[in-house]
Amino acid sequence: MNCIIRPCTVKDCKVILQFIKEIAVHYRVPPTEVKVTLEVLREDGFGAQPQYDCYVAELPPRQTNKEGGIVGYVLSSFTYSTWKGRNLYVDNLYVQPQFRGQQIGKRLIEKAAQAAVAKGCGQLRMHIAKTNEMGFLARQGGQDLTAKEGWSLFHFKEDALRRLAARSKF
Amino acid sequence: MNCIIRPCTVKDCKVILQFIKEIAVHYRVPPTEVKVTLEVLREDGFGAQPQYDCYVAELPPRQTNKEGGIVGYVLSSFTYSTWKGRNLYVDNLYVQPQFRGQQIGKRLIEKAAQAAVAKGCGQLRMHIAKTNEMGFLARQGGQDLTAKEGWSLFHFKEDALRRLAARSKF
Repeated sequence: MNCIIRPCTVKDCKVILQFIKEIAVHYRVPPTEVKVTLEVLREDGFGAQPQYDCYVAELPPRQTNKEGGIVGYVLSSFTYSTWKGRNLYVDNLYVQPQFRGQQIGKRLIEKAAQAAVAKGCGQLRMHIAKTNEMGFLARQGGQDLTAKEGWSLFHFKEDALRRLAARSKF
Repeated sequence: MNCIIRPCTVKDCKVILQFIKEIAVHYRVPPTEVKVTLEVLREDGFGAQPQYDCYVAELPPRQTNKEGGIVGYVLSSFTYSTWKGRNLYVDNLYVQPQFRGQQIGKRLIEKAAQAAVAKGCGQLRMHIAKTNEMGFLARQGGQDLTAKEGWSLFHFKEDALRRLAARSKF
């Protein structure tokens, strides 16, 4: 499958949001947990202060699907590490189930890596909760730092974050 | 201990770098793994395109230590979540061992949370590899998503990232 990998445009946001919701279903996350709307996704990606980078995989010319030819995407932002400097953080790497096994995911993460190197990143990080995806990432050269060094992901949900913030006296 | 929590300035970078190296020793990371230099830390925090936010804890007036009064810091950047929008990612929360047990870490993370809410973040995330720090975060309202949902942290080190990037044909 000779998909084209290209930067996401504001017009692609509608399909990206559909995919985001499909991923939530896959992870059995209630739809109410997806707070991002089409307007938010457009503003955060293509407004005055872009907050993420995104590339899409598109079917070759003259092939299409009901998503207008888009079959997958990779969405990332930057984080800062005091040991390594700027890092790429990949939040999502997704290929529609019917298009898997054709190296589309591999090409998407290669593109994200290329963009990361171009922007001076010292490493690429992502979170994974599925065994088959861990195998895929390991084959691309990734390491499982949770298994290797015992790192756990902690989070403060919005209500916990707001309570914490409200206690600050400074 | 009535420490003051205030934004880090470019002058504080020297002490922050010293603390970063102390953390590396604590995690038994070889010093060569700390790629960040004083110049990088100054440029990345206070140059034309700031890449992180940092607050420091400082001893009350008329008290000092050999670090000019600085006893801890919290350093963070933003990531983007397709489910939640903008997140705060805390890379480091540190208090010098001799000043622990005085709620300085708690005040630092409260300040980071306050800044996160002010900038529209939907959640706060961090990585932890030490049991005592997990207890501290849980008491502040944090949840261990690795224990709860099985998330693992994958990374591509610089050499793996460069190999991946070099394969991209797009």
